Amino acid sequence: MTELFTTIDALRARLEDAGRVAFVPTMGALHDGHLALVHRAIQVADTVVVSIFVNPLQFGEGEDFGRYPRDLDADRAVLPSGVIVFAPEVTELYPDGDVQVRLSAGAIGDTFEGKTRPGHFDGMLTVVVKLLNIVTPHVVVFGQKDAQQVFLVRRMIQDLNLPVAIDVAPTVREPDGLALSSRNRYLSEPERSTALALSAALSAATDASATRESAVTAAKAALAAEPTADVDYFDLVDPATFLPVPDDFAGEATAIVAARVGTTRLIDNAPVILG
Amino acid sequence: MTELFTTIDALRARLEDAGRVAFVPTMGALHDGHLALVHRAIQVADTVVVSIFVNPLQFGEGEDFGRYPRDLDADRAVLPSGVIVFAPEVTELYPDGDVQVRLSAGAIGDTFEGKTRPGHFDGMLTVVVKLLNIVTPHVVVFGQKDAQQVFLVRRMIQDLNLPVAIDVAPTVREPDGLALSSRNRYLSEPERSTALALSAALSAATDASATRESAVTAAKAALAAEPTADVDYFDLVDPATFLPVPDDFAGEATAIVAARVGTTRLIDNAPVILG
Repeated sequence: MTELFTTIDALRARLEDAGRVAFVPTMGALHDGHLALVHRAIQVADTVVVSIFVNPLQFGEGEDFGRYPRDLDADRAVLPSGVIVFAPEVTELYPDGDVQVRLSAGAIGDTFEGKTRPGHFDGMLTVVVKLLNIVTPHVVVFGQKDAQQVFLVRRMIQDLNLPVAIDVAPTVREPDGLALSSRNRYLSEPERSTALALSAALSAATDASATRESAVTAAKAALAAEPTADVDYFDLVDPATFLPVPDDFAGEATAIVAARVGTTRLIDNAPVILG
Repeated sequence: MTELFTTIDALRARLEDAGRVAFVPTMGALHDGHLALVHRAIQVADTVVVSIFVNPLQFGEGEDFGRYPRDLDADRAVLPSGVIVFAPEVTELYPDGDVQVRLSAGAIGDTFEGKTRPGHFDGMLTVVVKLLNIVTPHVVVFGQKDAQQVFLVRRMIQDLNLPVAIDVAPTVREPDGLALSSRNRYLSEPERSTALALSAALSAATDASATRESAVTAAKAALAAEPTADVDYFDLVDPATFLPVPDDFAGEATAIVAARVGTTRLIDNAPVILG
């Protein structure tokens, strides 16, 4: 059984003298990718807190805030016994409906995911810092699946001197390569097949990775083979800066891809060695 | 004697098991207003930390970052024995020279002080949250002298669920009414006399405070009596919102004033009961 808390005060009281705390922030609709984060958390802490909160601040107009899957009972049922679940109402975190003071993600927050989703990363960082201030964990665990999110959370921890360590877990995939995502639930059977174009593009980039140009060419060919996947971007970025790598870059880059499949927007990423 | 720390790691190590910590963030050039904050801090905590850091992020182009008074030895000499001083170099807090992820003060951050000093409050909140994350105090002490700063720090604590209490100390004044400020050091003898227009305007507003209109009229007359004071703004704001109060407002408002005297920009504020 998990313990459930819905208010900040009750959770804070529970966490007094809770020893070393590891925290896994989620939006619920938990899958094996989330559970991998929770198991990492269990290994490094006395107490594990999983938040389940669909954060309105990080959804834009016309995005899927309304239809995002919410099933707290199902989520609690798949979590290991002993985990503390924090599932506040929106009014608990935003008593005024919004915040005046918020986080600003800076220039990288306007690229890639942020270009298609204006304000997304400001809203994401704002809720993450709120949750970190409520839980005050020793370590926070994120999934590499959301590479730009992970980059910006790392920057935030560093830039704002947040007293927390970050642990990043590798992406969990289906046997055929599809990265686990709560949004996979939106996919019809043919869409799920189309969605394989993302991981196929990353594999093609990895296999062809002599140079930036050869990796990009191979990935774009793989994406072109699934014309119903509406590609938003494919690029290779420097993990240290999240800026596109130059043509002569040598070392580990991160290949990132985003595409719309039907009405569902999917993202994925993988390391690619160049040079 | 004070204890001096210049690095984050050394300060954090010193503050382990330091009991209840109270924190007074300053830019140095300490005067009796700062010392009043420190004495409040001593009363409520086992350990008192005073930071002395002239934060480049909150100064704009053409402002007084370069000439702002810096004298660490003099500052340490006036602090009570036992106080921990944290005086980092700029590179300790901004190893990259700046931050990518920062605080955004929102709409109120663009009014009054923020209108004249674009970005000032984003930079101020950013360094305050950094210092709070480094010191992790139980209580942070600010002076009411900087009313808009206090308003925004309160909002930040509330909006971001920062685990810290805030204590605000009343403004300390010279016998003739001039609010203590590190920037008073810039004033020549005649300028110091002119500077009394600010506190005179606040007194006039208090004395005439039947309505917003009568308070504003009285204050503007007092300011007009010192034509060499270059008034930036005088207004009455609601302490709950920092928005100008309506004409029929009843209750406690905050009268706020800013003026340039010579090359020195001064601010002051006082409570005014209306209605």
